[in-house]
Amino acid sequence: MKTVRFTTALLALALLVSCAQPMTDGPPVKVIDPLPSWNHSDAKQSIFDFVSRVTDPENPDFVPESERIAVFDNDGTLWPSHPMYTQLAFALDRIKELAPEHPEWKTTQPFKAVLDGDMKAVAAAGEKGLVELVMASHAGMTTADFEAIVADWFKTARHPRFNKPYTELAYQPMLELLEFLRANGFKTYIVSGGGVEFMRPMTEAVYGIPPEQVVGSTIKTKYEIENGKPVLMRLPEINFIDDKTGKPVGINTFIGRRPIAAFGNSDGDREMLEWTGAGSGRSLEMLVFHDDAEREYAYGPAGGLPDSPFGAFSQTTMDEAKKNGWVVISMKDDWGRIFAFDE
Amino acid sequence: MKTVRFTTALLALALLVSCAQPMTDGPPVKVIDPLPSWNHSDAKQSIFDFVSRVTDPENPDFVPESERIAVFDNDGTLWPSHPMYTQLAFALDRIKELAPEHPEWKTTQPFKAVLDGDMKAVAAAGEKGLVELVMASHAGMTTADFEAIVADWFKTARHPRFNKPYTELAYQPMLELLEFLRANGFKTYIVSGGGVEFMRPMTEAVYGIPPEQVVGSTIKTKYEIENGKPVLMRLPEINFIDDKTGKPVGINTFIGRRPIAAFGNSDGDREMLEWTGAGSGRSLEMLVFHDDAEREYAYGPAGGLPDSPFGAFSQTTMDEAKKNGWVVISMKDDWGRIFAFDE
Repeated sequence: MKTVRFTTALLALALLVSCAQPMTDGPPVKVIDPLPSWNHSDAKQSIFDFVSRVTDPENPDFVPESERIAVFDNDGTLWPSHPMYTQLAFALDRIKELAPEHPEWKTTQPFKAVLDGDMKAVAAAGEKGLVELVMASHAGMTTADFEAIVADWFKTARHPRFNKPYTELAYQPMLELLEFLRANGFKTYIVSGGGVEFMRPMTEAVYGIPPEQVVGSTIKTKYEIENGKPVLMRLPEINFIDDKTGKPVGINTFIGRRPIAAFGNSDGDREMLEWTGAGSGRSLEMLVFHDDAEREYAYGPAGGLPDSPFGAFSQTTMDEAKKNGWVVISMKDDWGRIFAFDE
Repeated sequence: MKTVRFTTALLALALLVSCAQPMTDGPPVKVIDPLPSWNHSDAKQSIFDFVSRVTDPENPDFVPESERIAVFDNDGTLWPSHPMYTQLAFALDRIKELAPEHPEWKTTQPFKAVLDGDMKAVAAAGEKGLVELVMASHAGMTTADFEAIVADWFKTARHPRFNKPYTELAYQPMLELLEFLRANGFKTYIVSGGGVEFMRPMTEAVYGIPPEQVVGSTIKTKYEIENGKPVLMRLPEINFIDDKTGKPVGINTFIGRRPIAAFGNSDGDREMLEWTGAGSGRSLEMLVFHDDAEREYAYGPAGGLPDSPFGAFSQTTMDEAKKNGWVVISMKDDWGRIFAFDE
């Protein structure tokens, strides 16, 4: 881990996290940087500045610890969303696995497209087709069985480009940020359009975020007694979509407090950032901008993957970011390292 | 606070909470009882026994701290539900307050019944009527406005029998139990049929339970921009009823972990206790039995208020409790004190 020199204000803050040596009157003190994978740019500075203000009881922007809620989108913000959402990769694998029990899928869309590996036809099936795929792959079993299926899948599935388990693809700078916020009294939440029961089996191990701090989309479940034991059956019916305007709704329903920090990467996160910024005190909103085709991907206003449906943000959101003082994180310029396995 | 003598095993446990004096080789050590409002009966002993087992790393029943989830029903478990649910009292007051803007209510049921103070006619309107009252009193404003309305109401409303603010009617033994569990690494949750946004403005002050640990029924909300600022509008449409089979569903959706301890008082809590008891390890299920007409109320299998619709448990649940090893707490016999203001 490299050591760097900070200004006095940052020094005090950084010392809260990890103290390399006691302060003396001697030469400048070296402290361990709590965000070593972030380059020394405005994005990093804005994090230090915000945390320094809201944690200092003498500062007019001070926020009591119980109200330090930070919300993070998952796909594209904490880990990649390309070439497709991890959960969609799971759904496709699951459809293939279940296919022998469903001979009719060979001739029915969108299942045929999945079995043929024809991703264009899958995309052409649109939202309705996507919902059908999710229902066929995510419902019809108990919550306990689904959890086991998901946990098993994560053990063997690999990202097609990086050839690593998805659980090793968390962005290293974001892992450091999560830890830094928690060390400063924040409660960190995931607020994702993804399925809450798809994420919960891995969030604690990957992000240090416990299941009860994961907000996401849900399908309906039903309490039943099976062989004398209560189970929750997963029904093929959508309950709640935690995306776009659904994110503030989900935050209000699950958390019941307005966050003071929000991190996203797509148009689906706009309302979450707006809602966070509309509080009465100081807040921090950041957007991860995928502009690094070399180490990850470049899309959205960065070009590169113009037709990508997965988690790009548009020029409209970029403009709103500028207007509202949201900090845009350039993966290329602001992150010295993207993955833990990067050198 | 009275001091009592414990057996050695309990002593070690109680010392974790509050240590009156260091242990010596002298006479038996006196420790401060963490549950002073509980009489020394089996109910109290079952709490000590359970907490002692799950917090002791050497015990086969040990449960890691992150998995120590305890769920509490609210009405009738943490505070009275008679002569009516506190939230219904709020709804009725609110209907009366809004009546001048709704001249049609003078001739329309169930509003007419509320304005006439005819509780029999209110009850006769059934569930459909109740939903109408809730929608008229709980929807049509922003979440921020509703929170302010609720907070204001709690400041002035009084319980008709005890003539105290509702917020002073938390059962003292349950406040001690909440605190005792938290001191032993438990995360305490409310899981109530009541509206989540009716409870959240008061749960932290009354029970020490933060808003994000309150699970309850919800109505739909909608994200809107009002005068350039985002708001969540409360719609007159039920989203989720957190009662009966809804309680395990709510627990799974909001918390995502199975509790190891559950506390209820009514037939509406049965499935929550069943779900808690169906975990793989040791668990504790308790039912508050309202059998104290003198200090509070007697109803359900205790008789007294046989037609009461609010939170009684039936003989069926009493039988299930015996079969499943659920502990029935007799308010009369197990609680030395019910309210903080009792002598």
